[in-house]
Order: sequence, then structure tokens, then C-alpha cells
Amino acid sequence: MKSTAPALIAVDWGSSAFRAYLLDHHQRVLDSVTSNAGVSQHARRHAEVLQQHCGPWLAATPHIPVYMSGVIGSRSGWQEVPYIPCPARLADVKRLLTRATGQQGTQAGESDIRIVPGISGYSPSGAPDVMRGEEVQTFGALDHLGTGSGLVCLPGTHSKWVQVDSDRLTSFATFMTGELYGLLRKEGAINVIIQNDTDDPEAFLAGVSAGESAGGLLHQIFSIRARHLTGQLPGAAVSPYLSGLLIGNELTAALTLYPDPDAVIVVGSDILTRHYTTALDHLGITTQVVAADQAFLRGIALVTAADCGQGQ
Amino acid sequence: MKSTAPALIAVDWGSSAFRAYLLDHHQRVLDSVTSNAGVSQHARRHAEVLQQHCGPWLAATPHIPVYMSGVIGSRSGWQEVPYIPCPARLADVKRLLTRATGQQGTQAGESDIRIVPGISGYSPSGAPDVMRGEEVQTFGALDHLGTGSGLVCLPGTHSKWVQVDSDRLTSFATFMTGELYGLLRKEGAINVIIQNDTDDPEAFLAGVSAGESAGGLLHQIFSIRARHLTGQLPGAAVSPYLSGLLIGNELTAALTLYPDPDAVIVVGSDILTRHYTTALDHLGITTQVVAADQAFLRGIALVTAADCGQGQ
Repeated sequence: MKSTAPALIAVDWGSSAFRAYLLDHHQRVLDSVTSNAGVSQHARRHAEVLQQHCGPWLAATPHIPVYMSGVIGSRSGWQEVPYIPCPARLADVKRLLTRATGQQGTQAGESDIRIVPGISGYSPSGAPDVMRGEEVQTFGALDHLGTGSGLVCLPGTHSKWVQVDSDRLTSFATFMTGELYGLLRKEGAINVIIQNDTDDPEAFLAGVSAGESAGGLLHQIFSIRARHLTGQLPGAAVSPYLSGLLIGNELTAALTLYPDPDAVIVVGSDILTRHYTTALDHLGITTQVVAADQAFLRGIALVTAADCGQGQ
Repeated sequence: MKSTAPALIAVDWGSSAFRAYLLDHHQRVLDSVTSNAGVSQHARRHAEVLQQHCGPWLAATPHIPVYMSGVIGSRSGWQEVPYIPCPARLADVKRLLTRATGQQGTQAGESDIRIVPGISGYSPSGAPDVMRGEEVQTFGALDHLGTGSGLVCLPGTHSKWVQVDSDRLTSFATFMTGELYGLLRKEGAINVIIQNDTDDPEAFLAGVSAGESAGGLLHQIFSIRARHLTGQLPGAAVSPYLSGLLIGNELTAALTLYPDPDAVIVVGSDILTRHYTTALDHLGITTQVVAADQAFLRGIALVTAADCGQGQ
């Protein structure tokens, strides 16, 4: 049964999460493991973490190739892999796949590991920008949708907006939306008025609308406190309103950098994808959705195609 | 020597700082005390804090009137004093001075204490907004400059922009600039790349310029990390660049809400005032400066004028 034999381990390793998949020669998922063992939690002990999570797979199939993408290729990861400058094609990513060195001492540390490089460039605002991991999901999502062009939004701690034209990743811009949401919920003037976490679509959309309005984000964030103090926003509505405000602000700014898209392709987890498509619908923008893990697996299939002798 | 006898205690009591002044009948400062005993540090024990700081003054001059302004009049302060709706005149503030009740048991708790009400309104963006304490500094600063009209900027944790026309405080807008600066310096993706705190006027002004540029604040904040990773911004320049970015973003948004002012009157502490006037100069805006304590004392003189029988 060669078709179901393990052929590859694919690891999506970001700062706050670890996701590994055991794949066969047809890129079918034989097994998977997910944990919160993100790069930032395990400085310089990444081979051990890989061993803990994928030890049985490595033992059962010695010398199985391992492909890792994400922050694991950064200065704080397994080893620093240089960024590819933008514009970049999938062929550039494949050519600059980097064989991992060091971190010996475990089975994982001695495996045949390759790290996907990140991409650096300038956003349409002129600011320098960097990504690690989203390039794999972006190429995978477009391939999944059967197109070589599109505007892709990958919501998260550091949301990415990526423009691809005729299979070339031409420009991208990052927004610190998720991180700021976390910081404001953790302490400070907004934190103290949050009463509990509820799903409140009306408050979320009111926030989205405020995120588009005048006065800027620093003013609109304070207005949450003022709305609460003047009785207009109950404590239970603060969290969804804040989420809507930050996402609305991101969307408005991103659509200024990338105006009038035919559609926005949203690549993410269930909950985040729902929030972003709801907000984009509210702004009258058409969306297409690809699940983050599906985009990643398709992207890794593309990256490894030549190496594994599988055509796209 | 009646002219040097203590006549009044004036307290500027915000969330993070306590400042009290012992004044004579001519509003001259006989003594003063400053500490970090802000309202947020001493829930429900404010009479004790006042006693600790002003006990000797209260003992030496029993029944001396005490005027307090700032967050001390909020729900989390000594007692909640209602907001005056905007537009508001100094006469409204004076009329709605509130006698403090409760918190007996100390000399301070039994003193003749009045709390200055805050002001509520809507910013030109349509968002509700509130202030406590800045109204006293605003009226004081304008009186100090011999005018009844002007656009006043009071930088801080929650920066205020206040428009006064013919002695009427007509509108204001708050920006969460200082708080966000603190949060981003404390943890997260920007915090980890800050190497040390240096004064770097060039990095500060580069940040101010970025704060005006396209892409929005969420994008520009991430660009700090990208600039650092790509070697364009050394760790020592991160903090002044972030400060410039946030202040530049605030100024740009505030000047959209209050366009083309003849001048901006900046009321604040030494360091903050210098940052804001530098950034405003950079944007080609004329500034006038009034020190925060000077503005507060002049404002309290105006507020107490009728009560103490002193004319303005």
C-alpha cells in the first residue's frame, strides 16, 4: 500500500502555535498534531519540541523529509533563513528552501529538515514589511481557488494583506490588529470596563462602522470608554465593539492601500474568518474563504512538488 | 500678614498623579506636594491619601476650603460628580461645583471639600467624549494668554484637544496616545526590539512623518518591527520612533477634526510639551505653550473667584 505510506511531515510553526501534519505521497493527511508550542515559548529548544510532537512519526519512517514554514525560520526560531525580496514567485520560495542545521541530539534534530524562507518588501504605503509562513498559505489558497491572481487577507495577531498578480506575490502589508486587541483587553482603560465575553453581532458591526469614521484609531479607542461612561455601550458589548473597531480600521486602511478589489480572499481559522467576512460584507466587499490549514497544506504541496517528484 | 495666610488648597488629582497646592488669598503658592498617589492606586481610600499629603496644612488652618479637579470626581474617585454637557462655560463649572460627602474619619474627610465636575460632549467625529480636569487647565491656559478663544492640546495618557470660542468650551476629542505608548513598550512585538531609551530627535521626527502617511496606525506600528528586522531602525531608535509615530498620528487626526488652526496652545509637562511642539513645528503649525501647573492654578483661581470673593 505505497499510496498510504508516510512521505512527508509538514509543519506550520508560528510564534504562538505549532501544527504538524503527516502526509502520504498524494498529500493526504495521515495524522496531525496541534499545540500552543509556538516559537516564542521555546527559545533554542525547537528540535526537542519537534521530537515531542512528531517523535513517533520520525521513528516509524526514518529520514522522512520535514518541511517547516513560519516564524520558525526567524532569528528567534530554529535558525534564521534570509527573506526573499518581493516580488516573489513560488519558484523563488522553492529555490531558497534552506536545509536546517544544528540542534542535533534528537532524532528530530538529525532529520532531513527544510525551512521555507520568508518574504520582505514594501507595502503600498512605502513602509518596509516582512512575512514568514503567510506566503505558503497565499500560494496555496490561490491554487485551491484555481487562480494565479487575487487579494488575500490572512487575519491574525499580525494580519497580512497580500496582492498576487499572475503568480507573482507583488506586494503586501501587515496590520497589528490581533496583537493590539490582546493588549487592550489585558490592561488599561478599556480592559477595566470589559464585563464578559459575549457574541454581539450588533456591537461588532457598530465597531466596524466606527473604525471607518473620522478621528483616527487613537480617538476611536478612547471613545469606547466614553461610550461606556455615558451609558451608550454596556460592559458586555465592549469586547465585540473593540474587535469590530480594530478590524474595521484595518479593512478601511487595507482597502486604501489595495482599492476596489473584485473580491477579498480570506484565509484563516473559523472564528476570525467569520469576523472578517462579516465586516467585509458590511463594507460591501465580496469575499471568498479558504480555511487556513487547507491553504497551508496546498501551499506545502506546491513547495515540495519538485522535491517529492509530484507534479502540481 | 493676612496676604500670606493660607486661604485655599487646590488639588489636581488624576488617575496616575496627585498634585496639591496651598494658596494664599492672592492665589500665590505657599507650599505644594506632588506624588504618584493617583486615583487608580487608592480605591475608596482617598480621604486617607489627602490626609497623608495635606495633613499639616489642614491642621494649621482648620476649615480651609479644598478644591479638587480631575478623575477624583469620577465613579472610581472620591465620589461621582455628574458631567456638564458641552458646550460649557466657566460659569457652568462654578455653578456645578459639588460639595464632597462621605469618607469621614480623618481631618481631610471632614474638611470643606468641593469637586469640580467633568464635561461630556461629542467630538467632531460624532463620537461621545468625556473629560475631567482638563476643563480647569483649558480655561486657565486661555486666561493666562489673555484670550477667550483657541484650540488647546493637553497631551498625556489620554490626550485632549479642546476648542473654546468666546469663553465657551464648544467641543473636544480625546486620543489614547500615552496609554497605547505605554502598552506597546510594556510587551509584545515592539517591546521585544526596544534596546534602550535614548533621546533621538531624528528618529522621533521620522516617526511623526510616518504617523501622517498612508496605511493607518495598525500598519505603521507593525512597520516598526519590519524596519528593525530589515536593519533600517536600530533598537535604540525604536522608542523615539514609536513616540513620534503615535504623536504624529494623533496630530494628523486631531487637525482633521480641528482644521487650519491659527495656533495650537499646548498645555503640559516639560517633556511632553517639547515633543508635541517639535512635532507641530514639523507639520508647520504655530504653537503657544502654557505649563500644566500654571494652567491648573490659573483655572482654579477662576473657579474659586466668586467663592473666595476674589475677582478674576
